[in-house]
Amino acid sequence: MFTNILNDFIKEVKKHTDLPVLLFPGNAMQVSNEADGILFLSLLSGRNPDFLIGNQVVAAPILKQTDLEILATSYLLIESGRETTASYISNTKPIPRDKPEIAMATALAGKMMGHQLVYLDGGSGAQHRVPDETIKQINKNVKSPIIVGGGIKTATELEAVYKAGATIVVVGTAFENDDGVLGSL
Amino acid sequence: MFTNILNDFIKEVKKHTDLPVLLFPGNAMQVSNEADGILFLSLLSGRNPDFLIGNQVVAAPILKQTDLEILATSYLLIESGRETTASYISNTKPIPRDKPEIAMATALAGKMMGHQLVYLDGGSGAQHRVPDETIKQINKNVKSPIIVGGGIKTATELEAVYKAGATIVVVGTAFENDDGVLGSL
Repeated sequence: MFTNILNDFIKEVKKHTDLPVLLFPGNAMQVSNEADGILFLSLLSGRNPDFLIGNQVVAAPILKQTDLEILATSYLLIESGRETTASYISNTKPIPRDKPEIAMATALAGKMMGHQLVYLDGGSGAQHRVPDETIKQINKNVKSPIIVGGGIKTATELEAVYKAGATIVVVGTAFENDDGVLGSL
Repeated sequence: MFTNILNDFIKEVKKHTDLPVLLFPGNAMQVSNEADGILFLSLLSGRNPDFLIGNQVVAAPILKQTDLEILATSYLLIESGRETTASYISNTKPIPRDKPEIAMATALAGKMMGHQLVYLDGGSGAQHRVPDETIKQINKNVKSPIIVGGGIKTATELEAVYKAGATIVVVGTAFENDDGVLGSL
């Protein structure tokens, strides 16, 4: 049932763009062969083994049956002013926002494990976005593409995040509230 | 102190061989720039976050200061007849020896995370070596070099492990007991 909804959604998206569609799965069930690739996430900011290896072992044999490009991703939750859904559901603590050196060491460990991407997330509807200093330190020391999301509410903030070193910036809640929020960008 | 012993040991080994020297660290302190490379281990068979990310975050900034080649490695303990030091110290359970499909799914997850190598370990002084079927399934489905160690006591067993698909076979305790154990191999 869920898979059908996901498949239909991706098909609809693909009618409107030629860009590749990447899955950002919330759990091991959120897999669809209609997409082009999937972020294979390790929640490295946390210390919950379910999100470091448990779900990955369940997902791996399923993914092997698909044609999806698999993108090994260090997923780091960064403290953003209040408890987020991702932090609560995963039963993990985000990295303190005033400790960019911890985020950097964590992303570096992910790189040494073979991860191709870093995803820094303040969480859905974050109060504060990921600090520029965190992005800068990772950009300088880790040399992987960096995805940044959470709490980005204006075009000015979007530009600041790119300027700090982000490769891809994710805007969700702000668009849901007002799809003109970023102006003509 | 410990670092000096390790450094001296590697220097001594290098007097006797031109082969690269790789570190197989027991913890984040066992790093020496005298070696050529290091296995960057993730204990994927276990569910202890210290050995999935905690130690790696401590080690990563130290390793960045070295010239060591970093080899991302899926480290899997396989049940071998009795509790081993590795299993006890890491406070993790090994993969049941009659469940090659779990070992395979775990190694596949490691591959998707970006790991370059698989290390299957029965543990030091294991009663039974890693089952051939486990090695075969991983060899068939994961396509990474496979290191196998633990409980290999004779030349016949060594040959069987290579035949099952191992790339490198580790013999430790048997050599310590009798350095002629493998004959003229």
